[in-house]
Amino acid sequence: MYPREIEDLIFEMQKLPGVGLKTAERFAFTILNLSKEDRDHFSKTIKDLDHIKHCKVCGNLTDHEICSICENQNRDHNMICVVSQPKDILTLENMNSYEGVYHVLNGLINTSKGILPDQLDIENLLKRITPETEEVILALDPTVEGETTALYLQKLLENHVKVSKLASGIPMGAHLDYTDSKTLSRAFEGRK
Amino acid sequence: MYPREIEDLIFEMQKLPGVGLKTAERFAFTILNLSKEDRDHFSKTIKDLDHIKHCKVCGNLTDHEICSICENQNRDHNMICVVSQPKDILTLENMNSYEGVYHVLNGLINTSKGILPDQLDIENLLKRITPETEEVILALDPTVEGETTALYLQKLLENHVKVSKLASGIPMGAHLDYTDSKTLSRAFEGRK
Repeated sequence: MYPREIEDLIFEMQKLPGVGLKTAERFAFTILNLSKEDRDHFSKTIKDLDHIKHCKVCGNLTDHEICSICENQNRDHNMICVVSQPKDILTLENMNSYEGVYHVLNGLINTSKGILPDQLDIENLLKRITPETEEVILALDPTVEGETTALYLQKLLENHVKVSKLASGIPMGAHLDYTDSKTLSRAFEGRK
Repeated sequence: MYPREIEDLIFEMQKLPGVGLKTAERFAFTILNLSKEDRDHFSKTIKDLDHIKHCKVCGNLTDHEICSICENQNRDHNMICVVSQPKDILTLENMNSYEGVYHVLNGLINTSKGILPDQLDIENLLKRITPETEEVILALDPTVEGETTALYLQKLLENHVKVSKLASGIPMGAHLDYTDSKTLSRAFEGRK
């Protein structure tokens, strides 16, 4: 047995995705071998996550009341892109081409896991839609859960605002013969 | 960009061995999604590593002045097993058959990296060797560095005490045709 402090950290490290005992041991010893200052800093960065809140407008992660995207007056606030989780916002922002704002649902409808529409942040999305809203873009995963949620929102919103969905199809750089048939049939349906 | 607190943690996580940006992001979000209590505990376990010291006798990791192995009077204090790092002690303890004590060198001689004998904890090892000492077992990695260190210690100690070395050979469960020739020639030399 290692001293209790090391065993504790090895245990904690195994909470990280894909980390088993051996990797957790390596991680714990790496941290142990850092200088005391570096270790304090590491520990503090975890503690500092307490400052992270959800943006009061869109649900994005932020250390302020309202996130930098919602506060940015240069963005088009009449264009709302709906995502399932805050992480997706960063992925979309990396395109560097979308100039609207976002709305985080915080999940997707998943009846088998008992996640129903009322557990998602749809209420605030409805409140944000005004007569000025030009478009709601559904940027949800092309999975059963994502498609179900998209369909639900489409039915709910289509009489009030223009609703669009990200295109499904063959990923750029992929080869036809490596593409699964579901993706292929989507690409066919969406052909231009 | 994520909020600064998340970016900081992603940066810290990349200090762990084999962790790149994507994995660090997954780790950071896993920690973010823990409850505040669990996060505090995680952060505290890193902080608590400050209590870890090196045993004043053998150099093993401990949260006391002297490690539990050195304090254990049921162990044979006249048998000293020399290892390069504290982690090796746990590996050897898992055999459940060695009843002596240990000595941690804290490294191996590596001239290309400028690690010379005087940077290892050999001085304390010499002090621990008394006329009562029956055997010093060198349990060092069968690598260039380990072999160099073993040879150095052997020369240094052989006139004072019986020195032995762990056997090299084919690992249990391995197949001859998958064994490299260096290991094979060692196994030949050491045949019984």
